[in-house]
Amino acid sequence: MASAEFDLIDRYFKQQSVTHASTRLGIGDDCALLTIPAGYELALTADTMVENVHFFAGTDPEALGHKLLAVNLSDLAAMGAKPLSVMLALTLPSIDQAWLTAFAKGFFTLANRYQVDLIGGDTTQGPLTLTVQALGVVPVQQAMTRSAAQVGDVICMTGLLGDAGLGLKIAQGYTCSNSKAALERLHKPEPRIHEGLFLKDIAHACIDISDGLVADLGHIVKQSRVGACLEWDRLPLSSELKNYISATGDWQMPLIAGDDYELCFTLHPSKLAQLNIAYTPIGLIDSGPGVRIHKASKLHTLSKLGYEHFS
Amino acid sequence: MASAEFDLIDRYFKQQSVTHASTRLGIGDDCALLTIPAGYELALTADTMVENVHFFAGTDPEALGHKLLAVNLSDLAAMGAKPLSVMLALTLPSIDQAWLTAFAKGFFTLANRYQVDLIGGDTTQGPLTLTVQALGVVPVQQAMTRSAAQVGDVICMTGLLGDAGLGLKIAQGYTCSNSKAALERLHKPEPRIHEGLFLKDIAHACIDISDGLVADLGHIVKQSRVGACLEWDRLPLSSELKNYISATGDWQMPLIAGDDYELCFTLHPSKLAQLNIAYTPIGLIDSGPGVRIHKASKLHTLSKLGYEHFS
Repeated sequence: MASAEFDLIDRYFKQQSVTHASTRLGIGDDCALLTIPAGYELALTADTMVENVHFFAGTDPEALGHKLLAVNLSDLAAMGAKPLSVMLALTLPSIDQAWLTAFAKGFFTLANRYQVDLIGGDTTQGPLTLTVQALGVVPVQQAMTRSAAQVGDVICMTGLLGDAGLGLKIAQGYTCSNSKAALERLHKPEPRIHEGLFLKDIAHACIDISDGLVADLGHIVKQSRVGACLEWDRLPLSSELKNYISATGDWQMPLIAGDDYELCFTLHPSKLAQLNIAYTPIGLIDSGPGVRIHKASKLHTLSKLGYEHFS
Repeated sequence: MASAEFDLIDRYFKQQSVTHASTRLGIGDDCALLTIPAGYELALTADTMVENVHFFAGTDPEALGHKLLAVNLSDLAAMGAKPLSVMLALTLPSIDQAWLTAFAKGFFTLANRYQVDLIGGDTTQGPLTLTVQALGVVPVQQAMTRSAAQVGDVICMTGLLGDAGLGLKIAQGYTCSNSKAALERLHKPEPRIHEGLFLKDIAHACIDISDGLVADLGHIVKQSRVGACLEWDRLPLSSELKNYISATGDWQMPLIAGDDYELCFTLHPSKLAQLNIAYTPIGLIDSGPGVRIHKASKLHTLSKLGYEHFS
């Protein structure tokens, strides 16, 4: 790192980062150094957001800083991992101080909420592209994976489904009486860290809903070599989303839309009573094939299984 | 990750990756899971390369795959860490199978040489931007840092200085009789992993020469609160670089040029006899100020201290 870049990182990022007990050396050397407690495994994930692909040009940088971190923490949550630290790779067209200040505010407000330490990264010039790599810890052999669902499991999810998708429709021109909550869900999703930590002792498989419920549940079904049947009438939908579906007839939207970052998990029915978090049971794991949707006494399979990059 | 993206990663990356004993779960879930041996700390680094900033459009993708990994492994080498695994965040304008095949070949040829496991990442559409995050291990408290240089230390470096800079001049039009070695150094730098592992038991401070010798040694000097004096006549220069300097008078180039990815390290003079690697002593750590260059009985300080991003 050369000096102009280094000053930039210092000014906006280094001084705002918490210093976790595990961080032996943070920003400012060739590498960061971390101590990992005995009895834990590392969970690692990376997500990139690109202007005009994952967000519109001109998106509020504070929301962007939040969301970039949130989508990565959400992956840790889906494994039941406790977040520890993140690396930030920022490619920026220019140094825009107002933009950086707002971006850092969104980023660190969320980071500090979950005691996540920014330990390093890279700052480069180019088209706006943002990558976070997040690192968490989970007790050995206790991580939830996509391959652990079992026939007879109940499929559940946290929170509400499809509001981020509704937020996208609103951003694209759909009007409704109360758009604020849906837009908030699109721009500032909350990673379900606490829920993930709780679920790791109880649930079998888990995934975060980033590409759409059917697509993401499809990963569980494929990797667990099982099937799934969703009960459409049980899906947790907001009143605004119900209004949207009534107005448009687009009942598949909540199944297909991404960006909710709720957790979808499966567990043995006997464990439901232990679930001390807000959740909704939405279906059952069976022997397949694939993901089917039970709605008004009919079975559906969807042809468009959520957002596909490069499609 | 949606299915088209997932297939892409599967096809080009997943199947070529070694599976390290420490990798409990690799590509294909929300997170990768790693086991870290007791008695070790983690070393983490991230570097981004952007088209038209860090490399020319049309650069050989095989060289690019090599270099992207090499610059990250070089940061691990500078701490004395043993590489374990990497995450790869690829932003690509389109799926170009020939490009991906060549990129993966360059990437995995180097990865397999050092037994580095690709454990995850993200693939997105957008302007060509490549980020690697690398993870290594180093015995607790044995990592070399930039802040550990001591007055009286000898400054040494591995390999040759400035050949990557010469390669850049050649790429920009300078002609010389033997351009192959310099271009190879620019496009396919070798991370000094073995040297770093050896040095961690002997050297004080260490950094890899990525932004230029004076700029990078300047980080050691600043963070160790010392000074440095380099002996220009001791710099290890290739005959092609000596010819370039004779022809152009540009004697500062090897001090300023980046991209060599050799290690610059400091150690107590009594330790020189233990250095069982190829190296050259190039100066001394003193009480300062800054980095000075001793050449032909004159002392110089350089105004342009290497490559600065956003400058």
